[in-house]
Amino acid sequence: MSVTAAQGFVAAGVAAGIKSTGAKDVTVVVNDGPSKVAAGVFTTNRVEAAPVTWSREAASDGRIDAVILNSGGANACTGPEGFADTHATAEHVAQALTASGRETGAGDVAVCSTGLIGVRLPMDNLLAGADAAIAGLSADGGQDAAEGIMTTDSVSKTAVATRDGWTVGGMAKGAGMLAPGMATMLCVVTTDAQVDAATAQAALASAVASTLNRVDSDGCMSTNDTVLLMASGASGETPDAAAFEQALTKVLASLARQLVADAEGAAHDIAVTVRGATTEAAAEAVARAITRSNLFKTAIFGNDPNWGRIISAAGTVPAEVAPFDARTLDVWVNGIQVCRAAGVGEDRDLVDLTGREVEVIVELHAGDASATVWTNDLTHDYVHENSAYSS
Amino acid sequence: MSVTAAQGFVAAGVAAGIKSTGAKDVTVVVNDGPSKVAAGVFTTNRVEAAPVTWSREAASDGRIDAVILNSGGANACTGPEGFADTHATAEHVAQALTASGRETGAGDVAVCSTGLIGVRLPMDNLLAGADAAIAGLSADGGQDAAEGIMTTDSVSKTAVATRDGWTVGGMAKGAGMLAPGMATMLCVVTTDAQVDAATAQAALASAVASTLNRVDSDGCMSTNDTVLLMASGASGETPDAAAFEQALTKVLASLARQLVADAEGAAHDIAVTVRGATTEAAAEAVARAITRSNLFKTAIFGNDPNWGRIISAAGTVPAEVAPFDARTLDVWVNGIQVCRAAGVGEDRDLVDLTGREVEVIVELHAGDASATVWTNDLTHDYVHENSAYSS
Repeated sequence: MSVTAAQGFVAAGVAAGIKSTGAKDVTVVVNDGPSKVAAGVFTTNRVEAAPVTWSREAASDGRIDAVILNSGGANACTGPEGFADTHATAEHVAQALTASGRETGAGDVAVCSTGLIGVRLPMDNLLAGADAAIAGLSADGGQDAAEGIMTTDSVSKTAVATRDGWTVGGMAKGAGMLAPGMATMLCVVTTDAQVDAATAQAALASAVASTLNRVDSDGCMSTNDTVLLMASGASGETPDAAAFEQALTKVLASLARQLVADAEGAAHDIAVTVRGATTEAAAEAVARAITRSNLFKTAIFGNDPNWGRIISAAGTVPAEVAPFDARTLDVWVNGIQVCRAAGVGEDRDLVDLTGREVEVIVELHAGDASATVWTNDLTHDYVHENSAYSS
Repeated sequence: MSVTAAQGFVAAGVAAGIKSTGAKDVTVVVNDGPSKVAAGVFTTNRVEAAPVTWSREAASDGRIDAVILNSGGANACTGPEGFADTHATAEHVAQALTASGRETGAGDVAVCSTGLIGVRLPMDNLLAGADAAIAGLSADGGQDAAEGIMTTDSVSKTAVATRDGWTVGGMAKGAGMLAPGMATMLCVVTTDAQVDAATAQAALASAVASTLNRVDSDGCMSTNDTVLLMASGASGETPDAAAFEQALTKVLASLARQLVADAEGAAHDIAVTVRGATTEAAAEAVARAITRSNLFKTAIFGNDPNWGRIISAAGTVPAEVAPFDARTLDVWVNGIQVCRAAGVGEDRDLVDLTGREVEVIVELHAGDASATVWTNDLTHDYVHENSAYSS
């Protein structure tokens, strides 16, 4: 399961005392090959954490042998000292792996961190945790690995796609601060398919764009978000590029939906589909304008199918980004057409919003393209958790 | 006071039964001249209400003789019938004014509406209210006029700037849904200065850009927002353009701050100033990214000077929009430098956030330009009011 579902990978997750709760907080995932292909997608936030700077460089040559991830501290906004901590972590992991018979160098060890911003990591705990995790590496370690990266997550998130002779599996953490233009929190995906680095990077970028980057829980972009893909080739199978991307997309889509379902304080999971657009990008822009409207999100929290707030948000998208005639917009909420031609449609009291899943469809009548963006409602619990939790 | 502080204007506000509460809901403001110069700034939302379409056209020739405003219904998303209602309202007001000795035509009558979207106006109430307001027009009617446009406002908002022989006065309504790129809710400003239409329009556009459009309470843009300026010339004074714009800016800045102070459910008024930017537009873009971050806004609600969320939001602005080196950012919250060079600064416990006013300063170290954007915190009451109130 998780990152050890594919052949050629071992992993472990341990409690190293970085979290005050005593929960698991250090995870190591190692690719035992024979191939060591890797790809990465990273946050586009210009304020990026030290581990993002490090891992982006480490993955740039298409090879990663191992990744160490910690929760309990983001190592962001920690200056040159924080970067030195990340560097020292990679060196330590490389030496410990080499000493245990898995020869590697620091430049092939990725580092990911998540937790509070602006606080140095407790390096004694982290390095001792790395040693313990490396000592415990196992082909059964996927679940522990997924637990070691949790922060405010209420459940661990894993997904596996099994194909004819090869497998893609992954884990992710995240329960808020989910936004576009980035790779959404921490996510590690492994495969035993034989893929080259260029194919892996192209497939990962494409799969992230249509899955994790279509999650827009609260519009906020983190400093640490990272998606890593590692391929061992251990299955001996070489899927064609389309089949590989399809399986990867399936795993990331599942993880993305799990992130939405576990968003901090949310009461509804909302899929906003915009169709009839001139291009997919236009459809996505309109969907994202809706998913970012606090007025729309509070209305859904109140079980109110407020189509006025939906088309008002759509109307904020510039015509050059998404051409459409605002007078023709149709809106369905959970199957009821509450808005017809930008006016009143069926009785809004017919809409049942008592369940967790909400489906909003907006028809632009401008073309054939469509896109879906996922978000959550804006709730009292969101305000509570994010005003109380200092990150 | 309000729209009748300047000479040459009469106004009234009456209760016409559009609001179920029995509060005032119809306001009329009339320019008795001698000059009838007008200017307008309107929402840029492509889903615009019928009265916006009407009033934009009415003001396009630089002349407006009167404006009728109603609360209790936005007349947005009401189709051709809604536009016909607006047209009929303007015709009715023009006839009633002409019958009472103030000759005008429907094309010189602006119409503004605010309230629920997607519901037709009760025209019998509205037209009877127009008659009652016209019958009650008075040079002392400014306060009643300001009360007639209130919706969820807890207080009426007026401001007056008196200069040497001439005056600018205004009223506004708004307590949420305040966002940029528009004229922010309903606002009518009058002056007895002698100004031509081109000067009036240029001064209004400039003054709105640096005041009402710098308010970003929840990032949501309304379908109805309108700012109208009417100039009677009754003072006989002709201020130079700079002096006129300065007085107009002063009145709009006061109204803008009153809108922030009355934002729905807010517990803090937050001024985010970005300085050291290459251009004012760059500074505004960074400030707006911060004021739109739900994580920042919830942190302030929790009295948490969370500088990590501030610089993380700043980091989402593309480099081509606002060039700066993310490693050099400094942040002050209420005078305490909590972040120095994108790292930990002074002890955050020194920051006092118990008051309503919050001042955030971000130094980009990239140039000499600055800009301030005002917003509110994101609170339980915001969620409550916007999930319960169907607009």
